[in-house]
Amino acid sequence: MSDIRAASWPAPRRSRRAPGPARQSAMREHNLALALREIAFAPTPVSRADIAGATGLTRATASSLVDALVGAGLVVESGPTARARGGRPATGLVLSEAGPAGVGIEVNVDYVAVCVMDLSGVVRSRHIEAGDWRDEPAPAVLGRTARIVAQVAAESERAGLRLAGAALAVPGLVRAPYGPLQLAPNLGWHDLDVLEVLRAAPDLPAMPLTVDNEANFAALAELFATPAEAGASVPRSFLHVSGEIGIGSGIVLDGALVRGRHGWSGELGHLTVSPDGPDCTCGARGCLEQYAGLDAILRAAGLPASRGTSLGGVPAVDRIVEAARAADPRMLAALESAGTALGVALAGALNLLDLDAVVLGGAYAPLSPWILRFVQQEVSGRLLSAPWSAPHVRASRLEADAAVLGAARSVVQGVVDDPAAWVARVGA
Amino acid sequence: MSDIRAASWPAPRRSRRAPGPARQSAMREHNLALALREIAFAPTPVSRADIAGATGLTRATASSLVDALVGAGLVVESGPTARARGGRPATGLVLSEAGPAGVGIEVNVDYVAVCVMDLSGVVRSRHIEAGDWRDEPAPAVLGRTARIVAQVAAESERAGLRLAGAALAVPGLVRAPYGPLQLAPNLGWHDLDVLEVLRAAPDLPAMPLTVDNEANFAALAELFATPAEAGASVPRSFLHVSGEIGIGSGIVLDGALVRGRHGWSGELGHLTVSPDGPDCTCGARGCLEQYAGLDAILRAAGLPASRGTSLGGVPAVDRIVEAARAADPRMLAALESAGTALGVALAGALNLLDLDAVVLGGAYAPLSPWILRFVQQEVSGRLLSAPWSAPHVRASRLEADAAVLGAARSVVQGVVDDPAAWVARVGA
Repeated sequence: MSDIRAASWPAPRRSRRAPGPARQSAMREHNLALALREIAFAPTPVSRADIAGATGLTRATASSLVDALVGAGLVVESGPTARARGGRPATGLVLSEAGPAGVGIEVNVDYVAVCVMDLSGVVRSRHIEAGDWRDEPAPAVLGRTARIVAQVAAESERAGLRLAGAALAVPGLVRAPYGPLQLAPNLGWHDLDVLEVLRAAPDLPAMPLTVDNEANFAALAELFATPAEAGASVPRSFLHVSGEIGIGSGIVLDGALVRGRHGWSGELGHLTVSPDGPDCTCGARGCLEQYAGLDAILRAAGLPASRGTSLGGVPAVDRIVEAARAADPRMLAALESAGTALGVALAGALNLLDLDAVVLGGAYAPLSPWILRFVQQEVSGRLLSAPWSAPHVRASRLEADAAVLGAARSVVQGVVDDPAAWVARVGA
Repeated sequence: MSDIRAASWPAPRRSRRAPGPARQSAMREHNLALALREIAFAPTPVSRADIAGATGLTRATASSLVDALVGAGLVVESGPTARARGGRPATGLVLSEAGPAGVGIEVNVDYVAVCVMDLSGVVRSRHIEAGDWRDEPAPAVLGRTARIVAQVAAESERAGLRLAGAALAVPGLVRAPYGPLQLAPNLGWHDLDVLEVLRAAPDLPAMPLTVDNEANFAALAELFATPAEAGASVPRSFLHVSGEIGIGSGIVLDGALVRGRHGWSGELGHLTVSPDGPDCTCGARGCLEQYAGLDAILRAAGLPASRGTSLGGVPAVDRIVEAARAADPRMLAALESAGTALGVALAGALNLLDLDAVVLGGAYAPLSPWILRFVQQEVSGRLLSAPWSAPHVRASRLEADAAVLGAARSVVQGVVDDPAAWVARVGA
């Protein structure tokens, strides 16, 4: 019997640690994650007995796993559970707010943002620095970024958090999770080992670093948003659009990011809207960005594009909102064109991917009063399956810094998915 | 220990059978599939000891599982293995050619095809009937189809095969695996329970039936093609395009079909090439089908479209090839336009999905001498990541009936993935 069970057990993830017999240690790693997931996803505090019941582990095993999680600072006891078994209240368990935390970092065309999220998903600090990085070399931008991270890290440690790692969001093609960055067209960066450059900055505190596309991280933030944060229950399959100077998207299918072969999926901004359209920064013609990116909207409305103007000035999105609120007819026409082009591209994406919803994020969220209905119109007119299941198109309720939140979330989620690595790291 | 193992064992698939304790029977089902997979995917015959070695099962357990597979007609002994251990040759095991077989059925706009594939992947019979079904009601077309299936089934049974089931490929939006068919625009069918209609045909032999989009099945056939059949090693992530009167595609990422939320993914033919382009059968404007579908190519070349003409006449693709071979300048220009439009749409799909390759299948395979370079040109010019990893665009080497092969393959694969269901069915 025992051989059958061993054989049917799933292959353990490649492990960097091998204390004791491989099979037994891999099982404990697996069960540690199982127990932590029960605690992480429970709507109310669970007890050791609840964990045993839900997982099929013995109470002794469940207790030993919980003790390890408490010892490593991942879980804390929260007082008696609401529903006690057999009349006696049990000790409730919740994720620790003082345990490991994740640092999110976003470098975009006209801002740098940094935040810290604790294990329970609460954002403990947020910093944003506006600027226009298009004329600044990458080491200068990343050095500036490192100084903000250092400041945030020092604050977090004073607040009793332990930083598990940092994830960097960049607006371009990047090989997740370690780079290199192939191309960030709107920053003018290419073939750059961004993590190496960031690590070389004198101020950066030592911690594990990863990198991914900002649109993927923004989609992750949307996926993990609570119904209250999202303004609706979050669908399990959606496209999250990050509209800025450039336009990216993150594809979520059945609750998981679809990253593609190299992590380069979701380049919505370079879908062709019209094959003979205007030249794009990418070298092609007629890309969506040239119709619906923030600079394209400003140009179409007869306003100067954003280059240089947001540094110490008014960000592009605010200038667009201001003109739209003032009912400037050229701006309203520009937003109609942008919404229509975006709808054409999104209908294509939905025809290919068959998703439940589209979430308009980044700058498109504040612009949605003027673009949403044009997007919806094209999607319902061009999506073959619309008569049977029209996808819901709505604005994101998250702030414009969804990407930085998603980046921090990815670090936190890494700890929840593999608590054994954290336990080994803190030597608990 | 044993509780930890039980808890860490993956949740069993929902089972229709529950003989004996659930946990133990689910483990045996799982291990039966594990053993069969070792036999199915081995390049040369494997022995019982090889299976034990590869899976971690005891030799006694592996032998008992193999005996069950042999008893159910799934596996046969093939004589001594090439590499015997300890000098004594062991008995080799291979998939049975006389065991369960899958029936593939394809109903397309201008043909019906049926084939039978045995468990080892060999096609045992193929039937194709040309016609134009656009003016014929669905029950008549499916009745005609049922008669072909009945004939093929009778032949197969005479050849000693047992039909495990049939899978129907249709050119449209369908909820896999049981329907209904929402829309097959080029057949003029909509909101139709195709399996019910097929089952109602008096001739159809009783067997389990499933349905899926023809482009998904064609992609599956490409995925399972041997390097000899494919003319190259098959990539693990690709888009397979099915070019006919309509244009569909199947998305394969890391060796698995991406079906989307309802099974409606891959509607490449309805990506917008030009927002103000010609009207499409779907109700939108400027869809790829209106630039690169076979009827669109014929029209652009000044030839009559295919409706009605392929019934007893020359199929659309043959008329196009004939004119192209004769270097008819209007046809060459039409094929250049079609290839360019297809390339624009494919660049969009690749920007979204980040895949390694595109395989041009269906009628695009014989047309590739005249369209391939225009497709490649647009893809490399419009795909943001092309400078770092240009996807390989090539013609399929499979015959035009890839979809029907893939349909049969899906049935066979269903048996390989869940041999316990077959064992229970034959009472072995």
